[in-house]
Amino acid sequence: MIITAAYTDLYQITMAQVYFETKPNGRAVFDYYYRHNPYSSGYSIFAGLEDVLDILENLKFSSTDLDYLEQQGFEKNFINYLKDFRFRGNIRSSNEGDVVFPNRPILQVEANIIEAQIIETLLLNMLNFQTLIATKASRIRHSAKDGVLLDMGLRRAHATGGHYASRAAAIGGFNATSNVKAAEDYNIPSSGTMAHSFIQSYENELQAFRDFAKVRPENCVLLLDTYNTLQSGLPNAITVAKEMERRGEQLLGVRLDSGDLAYLSKKTRAILNDANLGYVKIAASNQLDEFVIKSLKEQGAPIDIFGVGTNLVTGKPDAALGGVYKLVEYNDTPRIKLSEDLIKVSLPYKKQVYRMLDSDGNFYGADAVALFTEDNITQMEHPFDATKILDLSSFKYESLLKMVMENGERAVPPRSVTEIAEYSKSRLEKLPEEYKRFQNPHIYKIGLSSQLKQERDKLVRKHNI
Amino acid sequence: MIITAAYTDLYQITMAQVYFETKPNGRAVFDYYYRHNPYSSGYSIFAGLEDVLDILENLKFSSTDLDYLEQQGFEKNFINYLKDFRFRGNIRSSNEGDVVFPNRPILQVEANIIEAQIIETLLLNMLNFQTLIATKASRIRHSAKDGVLLDMGLRRAHATGGHYASRAAAIGGFNATSNVKAAEDYNIPSSGTMAHSFIQSYENELQAFRDFAKVRPENCVLLLDTYNTLQSGLPNAITVAKEMERRGEQLLGVRLDSGDLAYLSKKTRAILNDANLGYVKIAASNQLDEFVIKSLKEQGAPIDIFGVGTNLVTGKPDAALGGVYKLVEYNDTPRIKLSEDLIKVSLPYKKQVYRMLDSDGNFYGADAVALFTEDNITQMEHPFDATKILDLSSFKYESLLKMVMENGERAVPPRSVTEIAEYSKSRLEKLPEEYKRFQNPHIYKIGLSSQLKQERDKLVRKHNI
Repeated sequence: MIITAAYTDLYQITMAQVYFETKPNGRAVFDYYYRHNPYSSGYSIFAGLEDVLDILENLKFSSTDLDYLEQQGFEKNFINYLKDFRFRGNIRSSNEGDVVFPNRPILQVEANIIEAQIIETLLLNMLNFQTLIATKASRIRHSAKDGVLLDMGLRRAHATGGHYASRAAAIGGFNATSNVKAAEDYNIPSSGTMAHSFIQSYENELQAFRDFAKVRPENCVLLLDTYNTLQSGLPNAITVAKEMERRGEQLLGVRLDSGDLAYLSKKTRAILNDANLGYVKIAASNQLDEFVIKSLKEQGAPIDIFGVGTNLVTGKPDAALGGVYKLVEYNDTPRIKLSEDLIKVSLPYKKQVYRMLDSDGNFYGADAVALFTEDNITQMEHPFDATKILDLSSFKYESLLKMVMENGERAVPPRSVTEIAEYSKSRLEKLPEEYKRFQNPHIYKIGLSSQLKQERDKLVRKHNI
Repeated sequence: MIITAAYTDLYQITMAQVYFETKPNGRAVFDYYYRHNPYSSGYSIFAGLEDVLDILENLKFSSTDLDYLEQQGFEKNFINYLKDFRFRGNIRSSNEGDVVFPNRPILQVEANIIEAQIIETLLLNMLNFQTLIATKASRIRHSAKDGVLLDMGLRRAHATGGHYASRAAAIGGFNATSNVKAAEDYNIPSSGTMAHSFIQSYENELQAFRDFAKVRPENCVLLLDTYNTLQSGLPNAITVAKEMERRGEQLLGVRLDSGDLAYLSKKTRAILNDANLGYVKIAASNQLDEFVIKSLKEQGAPIDIFGVGTNLVTGKPDAALGGVYKLVEYNDTPRIKLSEDLIKVSLPYKKQVYRMLDSDGNFYGADAVALFTEDNITQMEHPFDATKILDLSSFKYESLLKMVMENGERAVPPRSVTEIAEYSKSRLEKLPEEYKRFQNPHIYKIGLSSQLKQERDKLVRKHNI
């Protein structure tokens, strides 16, 4: 499946037709944001932007798409319009890899309303998923500390979504992936050695290990649990490691894939050390996630390499980030969506977001959302609780939304996954530890400038009458 | 991203290299199966097969893939081998859309071991995900009874995995999708009308409804909750419905997207009926799943059309089907993978699966797994409990694994999603109701022929010594 402009919801196209017939030149501003961090996390890692920009630069309807839409009864004039459809708008965005928080714009689209609607589904689809997975990966990295993290989830991923999961995992702090195609396309290190089937295909495990080590002596990791980890796999691995030493080679590691990983890793470490194989690393896999790895670390399990699959690439247990895309301005007038649920009332107007910095350059723990046109924001207010006000006059700050696409063309050079991952790491280091813990993390404050709050409340009153 | 043979785990390629150097002509049989139904369901719906066959027929490494692998240090001879790589093996499979159960082969690959390994990741990736989603869709269909079901999950799907989610949803019983690209590629009905942003882009809701109804009078569904469902959305929709009547048109429906859907749908139905708009349908959306829909039905909510998004396309709460691919024969000798966990001990030998039928042609509730070469299976035994034996002599039965690919070419004509969905429905009708309930469904029996069981136990003893 190739992504074209038909990679969207049908209602974007039905609405586009109505706009086309009644007000084809409407200019809209939409905000992308989400309402809750996944996993009860204290932050999220924003990911997917580069993919979106790459796709948008070349997005159009294919002739097959246009034939299909004509069959669906869309009129010739409108089909002709779609034939020339391109995204020609502006996008301001947080940097990919930045730590982000709920209920503030992460990305802003300013475009003809037809263009802005047609790209909505693609944007949500890519940003929601990659942000979910980068956040999961970041949490796993937090638990694993300096351990090596391998993504090996493609077989359990949501079909080709796995391609983007591997990318997002690298942004969130994974060192390598088993996914060859993703490694190739995104220039991520790839990793992988053997499965149980390899060993099963031999009459005995020792011969399987020997053949493997002979053909692929570099980065050789032997899988221990096909028959019995401590009785069969480990002794055979030690035999082969010694044979490799005699050839001037070194076994890189052994992998545990079942059983009690804390117990087995300690036993394995001790037995390897007794055999003077202190350099042989221990890799472990089997339904790992941030909590299992945290527990293994707390038990002192001497695991050097963690292979993580299902729980990483599916973003379990949340499985989705509920990011939304809301109209905030139309032809220079502010727009709002009301709801009985306060948190679901949207923030009108084209806006900018400011991040408050401590004197040492670290994040203070507050982002202020203001009208795009404001230039001197001296305080921020809680969105609903009138008693909560933060004086901003003494803070240094950063403006977070930067122009990344102007009139449909990239306004910034492409960034590699490695660059984004490094940037993400540097940003996470500026976030105080209390926001990173798993249990009841500190809540990062999101406030509104006084002017934005007043304007929002005015609009709420207008529609509530 | 285009799927090529590099859509795999790196270890498939490292193992392939070792096979290539040491035993390039090994012939393998692998089983695809899973160990637990998702969602504690009493069955699963097998999906993804046609996509797999389509991809396999044309699978090869691109020149970019080969360059990448050469950069990764794979040797020239082996790269040359990969240049000519094609899948030339046989696949026997359950029919796509059939109801299937844990711990019995669903699909069997018989091929050169290198080919069988390289396609493993692709197979697992496609079959695990589509089976997960088709099963979820089937459960939602069970709750919704004759209601119309719309998939509208693309924005929350796992990136391009959403394409395959829409396909699987149709197989599991959904009527239409919002996903234009999937509708186009798989010939699934598409559906969609308007979002909140459409209404927000107007100064008032009534004008938005009017413009929409004028441009798109057919299949027009008006969204009621942008400002207030009962105070604003519904009265405006009634005004427009009456205007449409005067033009000789009919409003198809109204959509509820927030609030108490049971309460609001009853109120809305009553108000529409009082306005002589009994023909206007009620659509509802907002975090629906099989349990919410069941509850709405039990409360008598008069909802005609259910829009389901996140919970469908992400397969929440399970998010993955843990299907596996195990070597069961190598060069005509049986292979086994042991585990301390009994359910994880694999079933050796190339096998066939037989489904027992009642006298009326419905499913009795038992599939028997036997050696492929056996021809007269008179009883099946529980895999581990020696006291549980079922006499099969009086049953009619079906053989479930059929040749679908022979020497790398399709052995059966392609089937459309519509055909598969109809087939799936007919198969589900043969499954007794007790297997379909959500709470503690009946457990469908999977047994082994006495000969298979004996041979398995012999092999277990051999490796346990």
